Amino acid sequence: MYTSSIKKLIKLFSKFPTVGPRTSARFVFYLMKNNNQEIEELIQAIQNIKKEVKTCFWCFNPFEGKGELCEICQNQARDQSILCIIENETDLASIEKTKQYKGLYFILGGTVSALRKQDIKKLRIKELEQRIKDHSEIKEIILAINPTLDGEATTLYLERILKPFNKKITRLGRGLPRGGELEYADEQTLKDALDRRK
Amino acid sequence: MYTSSIKKLIKLFSKFPTVGPRTSARFVFYLMKNNNQEIEELIQAIQNIKKEVKTCFWCFNPFEGKGELCEICQNQARDQSILCIIENETDLASIEKTKQYKGLYFILGGTVSALRKQDIKKLRIKELEQRIKDHSEIKEIILAINPTLDGEATTLYLERILKPFNKKITRLGRGLPRGGELEYADEQTLKDALDRRK
Amino acid sequence: MYTSSIKKLIKLFSKFPTVGPRTSARFVFYLMKNNNQEIEELIQAIQNIKKEVKTCFWCFNPFEGKGELCEICQNQARDQSILCIIENETDLASIEKTKQYKGLYFILGGTVSALRKQDIKKLRIKELEQRIKDHSEIKEIILAINPTLDGEATTLYLERILKPFNKKITRLGRGLPRGGELEYADEQTLKDALDRRK
Amino acid sequence: MYTSSIKKLIKLFSKFPTVGPRTSARFVFYLMKNNNQEIEELIQAIQNIKKEVKTCFWCFNPFEGKGELCEICQNQARDQSILCIIENETDLASIEKTKQYKGLYFILGGTVSALRKQDIKKLRIKELEQRIKDHSEIKEIILAINPTLDGEATTLYLERILKPFNKKITRLGRGLPRGGELEYADEQTLKDALDRRK
Repeated sequence: MYTSSIKKLIKLFSKFPTVGPRTSARFVFYLMKNNNQEIEELIQAIQNIKKEVKTCFWCFNPFEGKGELCEICQNQARDQSILCIIENETDLASIEKTKQYKGLYFILGGTVSALRKQDIKKLRIKELEQRIKDHSEIKEIILAINPTLDGEATTLYLERILKPFNKKITRLGRGLPRGGELEYADEQTLKDALDRRK
Repeated sequence: MYTSSIKKLIKLFSKFPTVGPRTSARFVFYLMKNNNQEIEELIQAIQNIKKEVKTCFWCFNPFEGKGELCEICQNQARDQSILCIIENETDLASIEKTKQYKGLYFILGGTVSALRKQDIKKLRIKELEQRIKDHSEIKEIILAINPTLDGEATTLYLERILKPFNKKITRLGRGLPRGGELEYADEQTLKDALDRRK
Repeated sequence: MYTSSIKKLIKLFSKFPTVGPRTSARFVFYLMKNNNQEIEELIQAIQNIKKEVKTCFWCFNPFEGKGELCEICQNQARDQSILCIIENETDLASIEKTKQYKGLYFILGGTVSALRKQDIKKLRIKELEQRIKDHSEIKEIILAINPTLDGEATTLYLERILKPFNKKITRLGRGLPRGGELEYADEQTLKDALDRRK
Repeated sequence: MYTSSIKKLIKLFSKFPTVGPRTSARFVFYLMKNNNQEIEELIQAIQNIKKEVKTCFWCFNPFEGKGELCEICQNQARDQSILCIIENETDLASIEKTKQYKGLYFILGGTVSALRKQDIKKLRIKELEQRIKDHSEIKEIILAINPTLDGEATTLYLERILKPFNKKITRLGRGLPRGGELEYADEQTLKDALDRRK
């Protein structure tokens, strides 16, 4: 029904996260209604994130500008004694938004499935170990990995490999989220909430 | 938190239908993980829908290839005596997928709100009238407009302006959809279903 | 955790349609907070529907009062020439609410699965045939069965067994429900809508 | 449409938590299909929860059997040094299900809205203060109130009135629930999770 150019672009948009073929088709028809200038602006913006955005040498956070380090890693006012390990870029953004954390970050690049041990190779384990070795100021390492099944496996794995560094290793607080109710909490969350009462 | 290039692209993707800022950020991080060749392929595909895809002179369906007419309008085997008016391109695709309809189409380009009469100017009313005038073979005009509030207003408007052409004017069947249940049908749908029993 | 009386009542409420164990527990705690008079009122009301409510001899609609016939069957102003066959009592209520239909009803008592033919025995087929035989005024029979899979099988079955009576047999209108959109309609509903345009 | 007995019972079931008029009607038709023995069983069960189930003199937990105390309050093996304050009976059941907690309970009977101070009268505050006075073994009081808006107001209120007793007062752990993700956590939950890391 659709022309080959339309089909091609529907196929490419369908690879975007959360996008199925119907939404993808709507994206294409949306773009077809854009004028040439708007299309040009979008293409420019896509090219720019490849051209302008670099990955921080230290923490793997994307950044723009001169040098090899992102704004956070460059900022000497950040607390150099805490390192927060997160799965990916959006987690870093979520934590920064709380304005609660003032230390350093390290983006691990994913999680390890408990079952597929070869996933470990995709994580930045070597780089993480190197950072901790090189940065003796670090006193505490926060494992801010999602408490999902894969996240738990990853946290356990990290605890094991980070043990030899003799740092304080912490995990994010577990328990009831704001607005949560005991009646609807799963059993494990309620156990966590009881265990970690204070 | 995000760099200016990332923010810029998040803003542009947020304009896509159904996309909010969180999904938009996920799109950007997805693209940042694409290699240069994949990015190039996407940009090419976006450029192609502007370069290769034309709008059919007769029915306003997007098409590729030579000439001014889309495949459907060029196809002499299609029934030249029925014209189906739809809101937009995806509706045409939906109807074609049923393989039930063999006539011609005309893409109106939207709907009229009952309240905002100036919306009428955005619809292809002049072009529609011209098509019907020029194409005397047309015997039936199907108003395949969505039975939403705005769609109903548009259908009433079309009935009024198409009356002088003295063609048979029909609407899509109304009633219970497949899998529907009387208990959960709204009153108006049930009235339609009773009225249009056969 | 719960006492045996509470467990018992949770179990009984869990048999109610749409009620799971968690909702059922909430019902029990709600009742425990009711005072004795409120409990008495509920028990009375439950007993009354068994004591006061009868099933109409003719159409199987529940009713209260004297005689063997419900209000609709007693009402000579209702159109005696149309019979509407529905699955159950709530469908009758849904149709009455539209104020569109003025004929008679017959509550079939369920549907036949296409696969389990023994379900037929549970339907009031014999009674239905008797009603049509006895009530020669009937000219049209509306099969107002839900257009679900089982409903379709039931409709086909009814059409077959009602054929010998030589009445006009109709089905409810099929097509797009009010507020529906072509883009999200399933293919079969769209085919119905095209077929039944008018 | 419905008879007065049916309407009456629909009205009473509509008062049940989570039940609207449509579900309520389904309950009534479900009961009408029950035989007399099943109806009798239900009525008996409803009467029993009023007749057999008592409220524990100490903790307000519903129980059956002899005496004035529920099984938990009678059980000398339970840790007499911890008191867990919960909003209602279902919260007690949720915590017992974890098998994590071995202390005593006190059912407060609801929450205080931050805005409507008169709600306080509906809570069992006097009784709570009496229990703590009478039961000098208590060393820790867990405020296991839901972290909702009203729950927070209630927790603050309890902290204030329990302060003079000079007991250790704790709250349930806050943070990410099992299976939760940083990206979708609200800001306050993430702050809690960072604050309460360990």
